[in-house]
Amino acid sequence: MSNTRDIAVIVGSLRKESFNRKIALTLIETAPSTLKLEIVEIGLLPLYNPDVDDASPLPPAWVEFRARMQRAEGVIFVTPEYNRSVPAPLKNAIDVGSRPYGKSIWSRKPAAIVSGSPGAIGGFGANHHLRQSLVFLDMPALQQPEAYISGVDKLFDASGSMSNESTREFLGKFMHAYAQWLERNTPSS
Amino acid sequence: MSNTRDIAVIVGSLRKESFNRKIALTLIETAPSTLKLEIVEIGLLPLYNPDVDDASPLPPAWVEFRARMQRAEGVIFVTPEYNRSVPAPLKNAIDVGSRPYGKSIWSRKPAAIVSGSPGAIGGFGANHHLRQSLVFLDMPALQQPEAYISGVDKLFDASGSMSNESTREFLGKFMHAYAQWLERNTPSS
Amino acid sequence: MSNTRDIAVIVGSLRKESFNRKIALTLIETAPSTLKLEIVEIGLLPLYNPDVDDASPLPPAWVEFRARMQRAEGVIFVTPEYNRSVPAPLKNAIDVGSRPYGKSIWSRKPAAIVSGSPGAIGGFGANHHLRQSLVFLDMPALQQPEAYISGVDKLFDASGSMSNESTREFLGKFMHAYAQWLERNTPSS
Amino acid sequence: MSNTRDIAVIVGSLRKESFNRKIALTLIETAPSTLKLEIVEIGLLPLYNPDVDDASPLPPAWVEFRARMQRAEGVIFVTPEYNRSVPAPLKNAIDVGSRPYGKSIWSRKPAAIVSGSPGAIGGFGANHHLRQSLVFLDMPALQQPEAYISGVDKLFDASGSMSNESTREFLGKFMHAYAQWLERNTPSS
Repeated sequence: MSNTRDIAVIVGSLRKESFNRKIALTLIETAPSTLKLEIVEIGLLPLYNPDVDDASPLPPAWVEFRARMQRAEGVIFVTPEYNRSVPAPLKNAIDVGSRPYGKSIWSRKPAAIVSGSPGAIGGFGANHHLRQSLVFLDMPALQQPEAYISGVDKLFDASGSMSNESTREFLGKFMHAYAQWLERNTPSS
Repeated sequence: MSNTRDIAVIVGSLRKESFNRKIALTLIETAPSTLKLEIVEIGLLPLYNPDVDDASPLPPAWVEFRARMQRAEGVIFVTPEYNRSVPAPLKNAIDVGSRPYGKSIWSRKPAAIVSGSPGAIGGFGANHHLRQSLVFLDMPALQQPEAYISGVDKLFDASGSMSNESTREFLGKFMHAYAQWLERNTPSS
Repeated sequence: MSNTRDIAVIVGSLRKESFNRKIALTLIETAPSTLKLEIVEIGLLPLYNPDVDDASPLPPAWVEFRARMQRAEGVIFVTPEYNRSVPAPLKNAIDVGSRPYGKSIWSRKPAAIVSGSPGAIGGFGANHHLRQSLVFLDMPALQQPEAYISGVDKLFDASGSMSNESTREFLGKFMHAYAQWLERNTPSS
Repeated sequence: MSNTRDIAVIVGSLRKESFNRKIALTLIETAPSTLKLEIVEIGLLPLYNPDVDDASPLPPAWVEFRARMQRAEGVIFVTPEYNRSVPAPLKNAIDVGSRPYGKSIWSRKPAAIVSGSPGAIGGFGANHHLRQSLVFLDMPALQQPEAYISGVDKLFDASGSMSNESTREFLGKFMHAYAQWLERNTPSS
């Protein structure tokens, strides 16, 4: 049985005013009190290069990211779609966290994915490409409800707060489903 | 009708001794003389961030990459698979080259994909995720022969030269098919 | 060089009042006069089974379908999404047409894909799963414009005719792009 | 808490001597005694057509399949790859079982996927296309170990029994992992 769970939230866009970042903030607001969500930044991670990983010292940003993620008990990805797939900064975080071999910080951590885009398709392509990686990383990924958020440029007020009530409600239900998924797929200690 | 075509080769791994880089060198050796292949480096491109693209000055590495790729008449991607998808450095090059909106350097350039891995599957996941991006980028992508190169760690001699004759022969045929694909899909001027 | 091209249109839904069938009829109406589009039916094809293909006599529906498709010079797929992928009747037509080995009726025929759904996503999942098959089948597939038609239940009048002018116009442009793609990718005889 | 679990095994090929069927038989042999695996046949299901589902009487094969699957507590898919995707008979079983709306027989049943092919790639394309459907169907799908079985034509002796000991051992471990996955993801009653 659980106390408060440490859940890392990773945002796929580096834009300061990213709509997906605002969705992430809404998830933090609407999450059950048993979950403590925190955005973990990925914008300063150098591009993954195995040669760099074999040398020393390691890039401090890699070391810090891996240490932070090691503590996380679950991961929520919130991402736009770039060119019908996962944005490079998010894929880079995935790759950095997955190595060195045998020391992946992703392994067995229950995950959920929200994809969002200004257009109608809601980042479907990014969402499912990311899922293919999660199979390899052994991260059980919440399946229902799927979260493809369309029209993200119309969901927030001038202060950046979610003003679309039905989307806010949906995200609250999403977090509730994730909390159940997390408990089911967390190894008992 | 063509003189020599300028073909950019992009390698998905940043490892100095990357097997996929060695495959790229073999492609250069076996290409028809009508094609001039050159590896274009992607390891120093800062992670794509739209805010940075809206400010000035732009990162010099982005400017240089976009200018070089603008000249290319075709693109060959040679890539490993990281976590069942496209390695971050390659996805980053895709994203950097695709923007700003309306100025993609990829548009309409005939492409081909070679994926390679030490394991049996030959980077199938990376290969097809990349293809999904190429649809959006409007890059006609060679379909046959598909190139999933397995066991890449056993194909080269101590000097880094391709020592597996059947793979070398296959790559030669692949380049021949690409040359035809390029001519068919290059707009006449 | 062309006279009128024989283009097979394959509809992924077997519903009599299928919205995708109505989209297919709109494509027929808006196609350039150089293309003669005809819907080829797939609903009576027995499920593909290699044992049946090795015996005789073959199912007459397979024989007839293969003979009809052999004559086609191009193929347009118009399909809904079932369970985030290609509907079974369409996948069955793909499989029946692809065999026996070495006698695929799909090989080298220029293709285009329109996917449509009542929801917002427009069959993106079906569209790209089908594209993965077309790589193997060596069918050059039109990339731009992509055609994900959403809200298909609101596009037609009571007589079943396309009443949404912007969608009709889009489909006309799509057919124009396909006609160019077809000419470029048709081997000269 | 468990007694014996009723696990449906669905084989993607209709070939009588299908290698994937033989893999399915090996799974039955190597499964923990808490699981009772049974192959559920899909070869006689008429192609899914919503009009037929809205009329009566329903095809008896659909009725029987849905009733049998309703009882299943988990599902294991064992499938070849046809044209880089899921074979039509398997996609048809997915589609038939998923409807009518709100009465899917797949919902929440823990799943696992084994893909097999004579070639090196082991059905990777079919495996992941099927996973995309399972997201929509709300079937929690075992992630690790992934099972891409290559060279399936060389794994069995003349009697059809698995003669490759390392593959047999792998499949036993796979079934063990599935049994744990099933218990974790089965709602307590």
